[in-house]
Amino acid sequence: MSYKKILLCLDSDPQPSVFDGVVAVDAGVDHLFRHGGVTPEGVRDLVYGAMFTRGPADLKNTAVFIGGSNVEEDEKLLAKVRECFFGPMRVSVMLDSNGANTTAAAAVLCAMKHLKPSPFGRGQGEGALAGVAATVLAATGAVGRRVVRLLAREGANIHVASRQLGRAQQVCDSVKRTCEHAQLTAFESRNADSTQAAVDGASVVIAAGAPEAELLSDDLRRQCKSLKVAIDLNAVPPAGIGGVGPQDKAVERDGQICYGAIGVGGLKMRLHKAAIRRLFESNDAVLDAEEIFALGADL
Amino acid sequence: MSYKKILLCLDSDPQPSVFDGVVAVDAGVDHLFRHGGVTPEGVRDLVYGAMFTRGPADLKNTAVFIGGSNVEEDEKLLAKVRECFFGPMRVSVMLDSNGANTTAAAAVLCAMKHLKPSPFGRGQGEGALAGVAATVLAATGAVGRRVVRLLAREGANIHVASRQLGRAQQVCDSVKRTCEHAQLTAFESRNADSTQAAVDGASVVIAAGAPEAELLSDDLRRQCKSLKVAIDLNAVPPAGIGGVGPQDKAVERDGQICYGAIGVGGLKMRLHKAAIRRLFESNDAVLDAEEIFALGADL
Amino acid sequence: MSYKKILLCLDSDPQPSVFDGVVAVDAGVDHLFRHGGVTPEGVRDLVYGAMFTRGPADLKNTAVFIGGSNVEEDEKLLAKVRECFFGPMRVSVMLDSNGANTTAAAAVLCAMKHLKPSPFGRGQGEGALAGVAATVLAATGAVGRRVVRLLAREGANIHVASRQLGRAQQVCDSVKRTCEHAQLTAFESRNADSTQAAVDGASVVIAAGAPEAELLSDDLRRQCKSLKVAIDLNAVPPAGIGGVGPQDKAVERDGQICYGAIGVGGLKMRLHKAAIRRLFESNDAVLDAEEIFALGADL
Repeated sequence: MSYKKILLCLDSDPQPSVFDGVVAVDAGVDHLFRHGGVTPEGVRDLVYGAMFTRGPADLKNTAVFIGGSNVEEDEKLLAKVRECFFGPMRVSVMLDSNGANTTAAAAVLCAMKHLKPSPFGRGQGEGALAGVAATVLAATGAVGRRVVRLLAREGANIHVASRQLGRAQQVCDSVKRTCEHAQLTAFESRNADSTQAAVDGASVVIAAGAPEAELLSDDLRRQCKSLKVAIDLNAVPPAGIGGVGPQDKAVERDGQICYGAIGVGGLKMRLHKAAIRRLFESNDAVLDAEEIFALGADL
Repeated sequence: MSYKKILLCLDSDPQPSVFDGVVAVDAGVDHLFRHGGVTPEGVRDLVYGAMFTRGPADLKNTAVFIGGSNVEEDEKLLAKVRECFFGPMRVSVMLDSNGANTTAAAAVLCAMKHLKPSPFGRGQGEGALAGVAATVLAATGAVGRRVVRLLAREGANIHVASRQLGRAQQVCDSVKRTCEHAQLTAFESRNADSTQAAVDGASVVIAAGAPEAELLSDDLRRQCKSLKVAIDLNAVPPAGIGGVGPQDKAVERDGQICYGAIGVGGLKMRLHKAAIRRLFESNDAVLDAEEIFALGADL
Repeated sequence: MSYKKILLCLDSDPQPSVFDGVVAVDAGVDHLFRHGGVTPEGVRDLVYGAMFTRGPADLKNTAVFIGGSNVEEDEKLLAKVRECFFGPMRVSVMLDSNGANTTAAAAVLCAMKHLKPSPFGRGQGEGALAGVAATVLAATGAVGRRVVRLLAREGANIHVASRQLGRAQQVCDSVKRTCEHAQLTAFESRNADSTQAAVDGASVVIAAGAPEAELLSDDLRRQCKSLKVAIDLNAVPPAGIGGVGPQDKAVERDGQICYGAIGVGGLKMRLHKAAIRRLFESNDAVLDAEEIFALGADL
């Protein structure tokens, strides 16, 4: 018997995500079981239904996707899903609330195309960005925190910037817990002066802010002579980084390589589909930011 | 890559319509994303998910269907869906709450098979029913209003009847706004006398009433010597038009061609399926009563 | 035109069952319409949508599955579904809330493999278990009551045991109403003494209790010299029947043939899939415990 690929979509929003559903279909899923309004308490029965219907050898044909607009809530769902598993009785699972994981992974992968480890950097790491100075603006959001995590694992020396220094510091502390060699410095980026300090010396800046907020002005960007790559993940005007267009895809502006949200989006979509396909290759994958980022090497 | 056809079903009822789902499957849709309890506020995120997942050239493989039992509510959903679109970023959309559009279109198409433009009519229009006198009973409901709209566009001279004259007049005013040459007269049809006046001189009468209400008695129907076609869209006894059976399909009774709800139903279903298929031919169709009616020419 | 197989899943729980969905896919269903939070009042519109979309000759391609964790509630849904049907306008329907029907049928089928009608029994019936003494522990739950029903139809002489004698008697009375030749005796099984009396002389004992409750101790089981078959339907430790492991599948222990929940599970799953396939062979099947049990003869 050949098993159909079933993706159990758990969404903390009342209506399950259409975006994630379409991508799953385009990645070859045969049947979507889409559930909205899922609470941590409701996870067990749903996941048991996925685990106890096919034999262990066939469980790779069933997988779980967790999406929704509230990443914190969805991380609780992921934890509950993992609690259900034991021994070979498990199914693969992916988290991509609001596209945060695939977006962050795509942004860092875009940056890496144009940067190499710096022999002069302070970094001691061995990652692909060892010693590279990187600034993350709006680093405390769901995407921003994941960008910081991924940059840290590649050995970058990261300026973690937020309008509130305390929240930036929290992100630093949190990332240090899972990546102890991470080189992180918290910065405030509340106005032109503080933002200038946050980007000073950076080779790459990634703006992960909410729509309709300019995080780095066109002037500041052009004045930042160290800057080689500028990536703005906000698609709704005004731009998060002045002068960068949403369609920019490795466009050179003022000597800087620029990416906008749509420019990053193509890779993000390919990553999303690759991750869905990966779910169905074995029954033990857990795809969070790091694992999705790793899939980028094959794209 | 060949894209699967995805239909996003938005329903204002708590449970999405099974009827519309089955018809969509039978019209060749590969994946249904069925959402119940959809509010106007919730439309944007759902439709963005349909719009931003496939490239403009492939968007014709994704479409939106709006159904439910409350047509007014669903018209708000349709308006919200259309607000989401810009430039080539759009998907085709169809409204058929409670089958109102397909039923009204099928009824008018059935009538047209047996009528031709009248050279003696008051009508100045050029439609297929120019100058034909037509009475619509229970014209203020969802189906009735659409029947009036379609008859008006074909140039008929319409008696718009309702138990309350004021509500009949409102329908006339509303249809005039979108079809300025429409020839509409409001009639009360509260009892035998007023109903007789409403059908007097009509070549066709279409009863679009709720179940379990007789709108035109068998006596009055037979006495109406001008009447060539009688169409009753109510399938639950008693008949909306006395003497017309639900299975009647161009059955001659007392010299009149009669159709019942089930007799019209075959064409209605073919129209419904044709409309679903039409959605997936381009990404810019908006199928409301008029567009669905136009599809009838090819059936 | 070849019709896709559509299964309308009605679930009284807020989230429709994933378990039942996966089994349906594996049994060859093409499209699942999964509805959670279904109330008796909401059944009609949903089932009408299944009945009135395809012609009578094609209605065998649409079916209804009723699941959920609350069997009593689901039995109300089944009654409402059947009320919708008239003449040839009907679709096949199956009830398997919480797997109660397939589990009970599989348990009795497992028992029957090792038992034959007793010429010395009190039974007058002609069933495959005529005169066989059988004890059902926790007989008042959804599974237990169905086990009693199925054993009764096969002519067994049944000890219907519950912690409360009155509730055991209610089950006896209820089963007598539909199976008047049933041989049923209510037993209390509140402690070791009463449980010993309940199993005394039985050739088979089936424990249908909730997880985490021992219904028959290892000692009592071994002391019961009449016992040939012991079936425990509880998969969560401690075992419902002491000494029986969840994986036991016709394992001999102390001269008794033992089955655990997982040991019965393989047959249960095959029955579940066979029942789903049966739904799509005609449009008039109503599959409750007895009909599902009957499908076991072909497996």
